[in-house]
Amino acid sequence: MKKLIAEFFGTMWLVLGGCGSAVLAAGYPELGIGFLGVSLAFGLTVLTMVYAIGHISGCHLNPAVSIGLWVGGRFNGKELVSYIIAQVLGAIAGAAVLYIVATGKPGADIGTFASNGYGAYSPNGFGMVAALVIEVVLTFFFLMVILGATHSKAPKYLAGVAIGLSLTLIHLISIPVTNTSVNPARSTSQAIFTGNTELMGQLWLFWVAPIIGAVLAGVVYKYLSPEEE
Amino acid sequence: MKKLIAEFFGTMWLVLGGCGSAVLAAGYPELGIGFLGVSLAFGLTVLTMVYAIGHISGCHLNPAVSIGLWVGGRFNGKELVSYIIAQVLGAIAGAAVLYIVATGKPGADIGTFASNGYGAYSPNGFGMVAALVIEVVLTFFFLMVILGATHSKAPKYLAGVAIGLSLTLIHLISIPVTNTSVNPARSTSQAIFTGNTELMGQLWLFWVAPIIGAVLAGVVYKYLSPEEE
Amino acid sequence: MKKLIAEFFGTMWLVLGGCGSAVLAAGYPELGIGFLGVSLAFGLTVLTMVYAIGHISGCHLNPAVSIGLWVGGRFNGKELVSYIIAQVLGAIAGAAVLYIVATGKPGADIGTFASNGYGAYSPNGFGMVAALVIEVVLTFFFLMVILGATHSKAPKYLAGVAIGLSLTLIHLISIPVTNTSVNPARSTSQAIFTGNTELMGQLWLFWVAPIIGAVLAGVVYKYLSPEEE
Amino acid sequence: MKKLIAEFFGTMWLVLGGCGSAVLAAGYPELGIGFLGVSLAFGLTVLTMVYAIGHISGCHLNPAVSIGLWVGGRFNGKELVSYIIAQVLGAIAGAAVLYIVATGKPGADIGTFASNGYGAYSPNGFGMVAALVIEVVLTFFFLMVILGATHSKAPKYLAGVAIGLSLTLIHLISIPVTNTSVNPARSTSQAIFTGNTELMGQLWLFWVAPIIGAVLAGVVYKYLSPEEE
Repeated sequence: MKKLIAEFFGTMWLVLGGCGSAVLAAGYPELGIGFLGVSLAFGLTVLTMVYAIGHISGCHLNPAVSIGLWVGGRFNGKELVSYIIAQVLGAIAGAAVLYIVATGKPGADIGTFASNGYGAYSPNGFGMVAALVIEVVLTFFFLMVILGATHSKAPKYLAGVAIGLSLTLIHLISIPVTNTSVNPARSTSQAIFTGNTELMGQLWLFWVAPIIGAVLAGVVYKYLSPEEE
Repeated sequence: MKKLIAEFFGTMWLVLGGCGSAVLAAGYPELGIGFLGVSLAFGLTVLTMVYAIGHISGCHLNPAVSIGLWVGGRFNGKELVSYIIAQVLGAIAGAAVLYIVATGKPGADIGTFASNGYGAYSPNGFGMVAALVIEVVLTFFFLMVILGATHSKAPKYLAGVAIGLSLTLIHLISIPVTNTSVNPARSTSQAIFTGNTELMGQLWLFWVAPIIGAVLAGVVYKYLSPEEE
Repeated sequence: MKKLIAEFFGTMWLVLGGCGSAVLAAGYPELGIGFLGVSLAFGLTVLTMVYAIGHISGCHLNPAVSIGLWVGGRFNGKELVSYIIAQVLGAIAGAAVLYIVATGKPGADIGTFASNGYGAYSPNGFGMVAALVIEVVLTFFFLMVILGATHSKAPKYLAGVAIGLSLTLIHLISIPVTNTSVNPARSTSQAIFTGNTELMGQLWLFWVAPIIGAVLAGVVYKYLSPEEE
Repeated sequence: MKKLIAEFFGTMWLVLGGCGSAVLAAGYPELGIGFLGVSLAFGLTVLTMVYAIGHISGCHLNPAVSIGLWVGGRFNGKELVSYIIAQVLGAIAGAAVLYIVATGKPGADIGTFASNGYGAYSPNGFGMVAALVIEVVLTFFFLMVILGATHSKAPKYLAGVAIGLSLTLIHLISIPVTNTSVNPARSTSQAIFTGNTELMGQLWLFWVAPIIGAVLAGVVYKYLSPEEE
């Protein structure tokens, strides 16, 4: 139960920090943090939580990560469903706090609330194929970093730095394409709060593509992986 | 006494670095560092001081942090008041140096001197409720990271990196809302130097909200925390 | 063989992350990540891969690095050619994925696809001599950091952080000069996809200069190096 | 002798990286790295060199650092003069390479070549008193971080991260005031290449102020310092 509470708070932090910086601070005139600041924010939610709760739950914060770790033989399948539920609920809690804050001024408008999308909902108009390819490939590399950096032969104290900053890197590449998901929980919470049925109709891609990428990485890394120490 | 001097200098650094970058460098035409640079600066004040004085005083630099650590069972209550006094004095010293520098050119105007505020004093016009919510929630997560990253089961050499960068993340999210406090000492020093009674009239929020968030984190983390090693 | 697959994926990540951020996100109106974001992205590709695959292949991701390590006595010359082939193929794979994504919207134009160049192809019009000098000197320092940070007397868990961030620094300096190579594999993959014969005609510099810099560093560091522990 | 060569190359890297990013990349239209990028670059020169040559020479790269460490009892006074000479020569070498590159395009103009200054030569018009105060105080804190982070009770593997990023922080605060020195070698090399006698006439401040700050830190830290382990 403590593990699930930790995953809940951790994923809440990921959404509040990552999507919060995007909604509240990215486009502020002149001084705004832009996509670079949002990329840093997403990465730092993970980096900070790895050190805060890694020793409690493993700090997945993402259904695709839990699935990739399970395929890679690092996570017990019995806990998979409860982890995913805790992550989605945590993401919704993060989005709820963000909603309260973002609407807490006169004339507030949450827009698409940092939702993920393609076609008309891609920040730069990228289509469905580009979205699928980038989400599969980036989640693949995200899991490669996670599986590699937590291997017993890697200097594991640094794993949180490498994993967190890999999420920063992923955002630096792909915010213009899909607003960057690689995390179905984060996509789901944001779409829900927009109440936009078109955005919800695109949610399938942000479950399917990250999970495909994660499964592929689990398989590939298992092959590449040296003997555990 | 050495602990208190360390807290004094550390909090002086936090205010000089964080508020100093905001006052001197954020809005420089074309080349200014913006909210992203200020966020990085605040985080780096803490990151650098953890390694410089962590082994002397524990490097709290913030009354809310001292209170949260005390509630979480990590800090002796007997030292609490003297730590808070040292932190507030250090913040004032940092603001004083910044005042001397910032006014050291013809036609200088310190504006609101990087003060925290809501309503008319929120950078983006957010109201009191939004300010209260964001300050409580962000201080809660700040203390969760501090309590988690310094737990005996966490890789504690990295605690300074995680804690410092969590303060960067907190600023990336919330500068547009309240100019980001999560630290009553930093809010107090800046309000004093403006001589603006309306800003001083808002100071209560930047003591109450961070302390509530810190107390909640102390309670929650104590429950989640694994056995110490 | 596992080493070569690791180098393949690592170099693919370097190109997809570094050149991908440049092509997709650098120039986005208002919110784009600029040269600072691209610099960070290149560095993070290496930082993250060091922790992911360093324990498999050593994580060179760059023919100049493999050559510099060989000259410096840290890498077996028998593996040199196969490493370089794996790196170039990985770079091409990264560029291929990027090509699919970048062209996945109406009216897409890949421009020079983040290629390296001088003269007319230098982002800021720098000539061949400036390009040669900067590429030699920066690769020299890149290898000095790599050779130094992985020395047995250095705190080697941090090597990935130092090496990755040295690549960020190198880009912060020199994107306006040559778009920054210091890596012949990365230069080759990008030039190929442009189909621009002038860019391909400049490729020689981005093989010659990085290799000269790397060889010099191998020689100098060997002299400076303290006894191995 | 190896120590002096290491200091030479390290300070060359500091000037080439820090001043190079300022001269070549800060003001590039739209995509330039601004003061934030320059701040990061300066910090990364030190961070990367600590891991590359820290085990050879201690990686001072700065006469004020050598003096502060000597006052703080961490550096042998016999080596002081030769270290300072090596640092100044290295800085000049870095500036020379930068000069060759920066002038390697038609119509090049090196401007003030990232020199330090006050009054008419302060980027934002700050006067001599502000310049003196900020350079003394920031060098004081720079040395406090260096002395603290390398203390035997600090987690010393992280010292390079803390020290490097403290230089980033220092630049985030003070580029608009003096273009940030805290390093007499860096100030000297840049002034020389401008051939501007007014800038050279201001050089005294960038020797005096950093040295005062460093000496103060040596004295204060010696008092605060816990027993060495």
